[in-house]
Amino acid sequence: MALKEELGRLANDGSVRCVVIAAEGRAFCAGHDLKQMRANPDKAYYQELFTRCARVMQAIVELPVPVIARVQGIATAAGCQLVASCDLAVAARSARFAVSGINAGLFCSTPAVALSRNVARKRAMEMLLTGEFIDADTAHDWGLVNRVADDDALDAAVDELTASICAKSAVAVRTGKAMFQRQLQMPLEEAYAFAGEVMACNMMAEDAGEGIDAFIEKRAPHWRHR
Amino acid sequence: MALKEELGRLANDGSVRCVVIAAEGRAFCAGHDLKQMRANPDKAYYQELFTRCARVMQAIVELPVPVIARVQGIATAAGCQLVASCDLAVAARSARFAVSGINAGLFCSTPAVALSRNVARKRAMEMLLTGEFIDADTAHDWGLVNRVADDDALDAAVDELTASICAKSAVAVRTGKAMFQRQLQMPLEEAYAFAGEVMACNMMAEDAGEGIDAFIEKRAPHWRHR
Amino acid sequence: MALKEELGRLANDGSVRCVVIAAEGRAFCAGHDLKQMRANPDKAYYQELFTRCARVMQAIVELPVPVIARVQGIATAAGCQLVASCDLAVAARSARFAVSGINAGLFCSTPAVALSRNVARKRAMEMLLTGEFIDADTAHDWGLVNRVADDDALDAAVDELTASICAKSAVAVRTGKAMFQRQLQMPLEEAYAFAGEVMACNMMAEDAGEGIDAFIEKRAPHWRHR
Repeated sequence: MALKEELGRLANDGSVRCVVIAAEGRAFCAGHDLKQMRANPDKAYYQELFTRCARVMQAIVELPVPVIARVQGIATAAGCQLVASCDLAVAARSARFAVSGINAGLFCSTPAVALSRNVARKRAMEMLLTGEFIDADTAHDWGLVNRVADDDALDAAVDELTASICAKSAVAVRTGKAMFQRQLQMPLEEAYAFAGEVMACNMMAEDAGEGIDAFIEKRAPHWRHR
Repeated sequence: MALKEELGRLANDGSVRCVVIAAEGRAFCAGHDLKQMRANPDKAYYQELFTRCARVMQAIVELPVPVIARVQGIATAAGCQLVASCDLAVAARSARFAVSGINAGLFCSTPAVALSRNVARKRAMEMLLTGEFIDADTAHDWGLVNRVADDDALDAAVDELTASICAKSAVAVRTGKAMFQRQLQMPLEEAYAFAGEVMACNMMAEDAGEGIDAFIEKRAPHWRHR
Repeated sequence: MALKEELGRLANDGSVRCVVIAAEGRAFCAGHDLKQMRANPDKAYYQELFTRCARVMQAIVELPVPVIARVQGIATAAGCQLVASCDLAVAARSARFAVSGINAGLFCSTPAVALSRNVARKRAMEMLLTGEFIDADTAHDWGLVNRVADDDALDAAVDELTASICAKSAVAVRTGKAMFQRQLQMPLEEAYAFAGEVMACNMMAEDAGEGIDAFIEKRAPHWRHR
């Protein structure tokens, strides 16, 4: 899958600061190609397909830099999962979200994993069981997307967010992305032990020294990104 | 307990598609009978009582089909827990929710388990410590209920939701209900492995083939519910 | 650290019913003293510092009575973590919240632990990566604070909440605070077993008998707080 390979390449590129997943055309992503799925009616094929798809989603979570979904049109099934799997998401006001596999007799089980870790469980369950769309404002209200912009201002809104992240120290951003995702799965005490260790390491980076000096001296920091 | 037995019966009835828990009278459920509790001042009795009640709540979570709470009037203590334990909930606009045991010197500990898995923790804590009611719109805003309807439109709102679920393939709905609840408790990687396996199985069901064919052919699917 | 010692003292004082963490001056808490941190550029020093800070936060979680943050001005970095770590929070309308370490090249890793257990993950991630402030109404909307009051009514709002808690049975409140925090980290079945046991013990307290009798007799309870 092209996205998986691209993510692999990006993971090894130390100069990357932030990744935006965007789509050409009218839709963000409508999920799997159902014709292709139906043409291979074999369980081993499906297992391999869903495993591969889940690996892409986990590759986003594990990518060393933040990933932002830029959502226009519809994001359905694995497309909605993709939005949920990103660290941040910006949606056009006309964008809509659904986990609509249930309409085709196929409950969106893998999308449910990502969705239920983004929004309250009854909301996720309603989307999964009814297959109905929610609009961008509802997705924002529920925490599935961070920001909603008028359609013609979508790029500007994404740019504002990426500019904010790129203005930060790369070492601090990479440190944070990795620690945030890992600590989510830990009990409180373990999470604090891990976070304290990560933060002490972060303090030893050149940029933390520079950033704190700049703060104290009331000037802009000059990042060396290490 | 009548509800527990009924749930046991429903769990074994393959023709059931969806369950609505509704109450006659003015209140949805006001929790335990305090007079009865007080008449048996014995710890073993209470342990047995709360264990039995917790089993009912878990039976809802484990039921093979979705359970919808239809809430009118008040849902307090174990009644609020019942709403939180259902997969979905529809409330009348005049409905109110509280975990009010604290007013009687009895912190709603078992309701807290379900409530804190539905709403943000500070909100759950406020309800549990103050015993105060929240109204239906607040419950909706917090994710405790899915939909709020005018009192005289409550049945219509519940019917709309059940009709949506009953229009789906039973095998897909049952697959989804079970997988959703289980994956919630897993770390991300394990959840994806489980969900991928479940989804591959779902693809082998007759209904998934029919549903995808219908989607491709732009016609309504004819479910065989298997 | 003064707060840690004070919490230790409060933990052993059986007469304490509820704790309010408030600050003098214009800000609630702006986190660590960056000058002091920078003056000790040693990893072992930082590890010790963050470990100590994390212990204060966990001491709040483990305190036998509820802890309320009274927030005016800004709550940044460890100050925002402090709000997130409290059981409840009341904010002045002009209060603002940020995890702004990223601006100084230091990702707020330990604050992320508390924040991500209070608000939806994409919202926490946005605050952590951008370092931007959210206002009190947004914090309320996201579940980071329970109540927002006009600045000149902040004390009245805090008083209302503490009065509500102090009007309850101390044994029920202490029982609840401890059980709530512990059950959050358990799988559902284990949480119910634990909660059922706690609730049966709570029923054996004098206050539960008195509270239920008062409820049945439609009179105010006379707590003995045991």
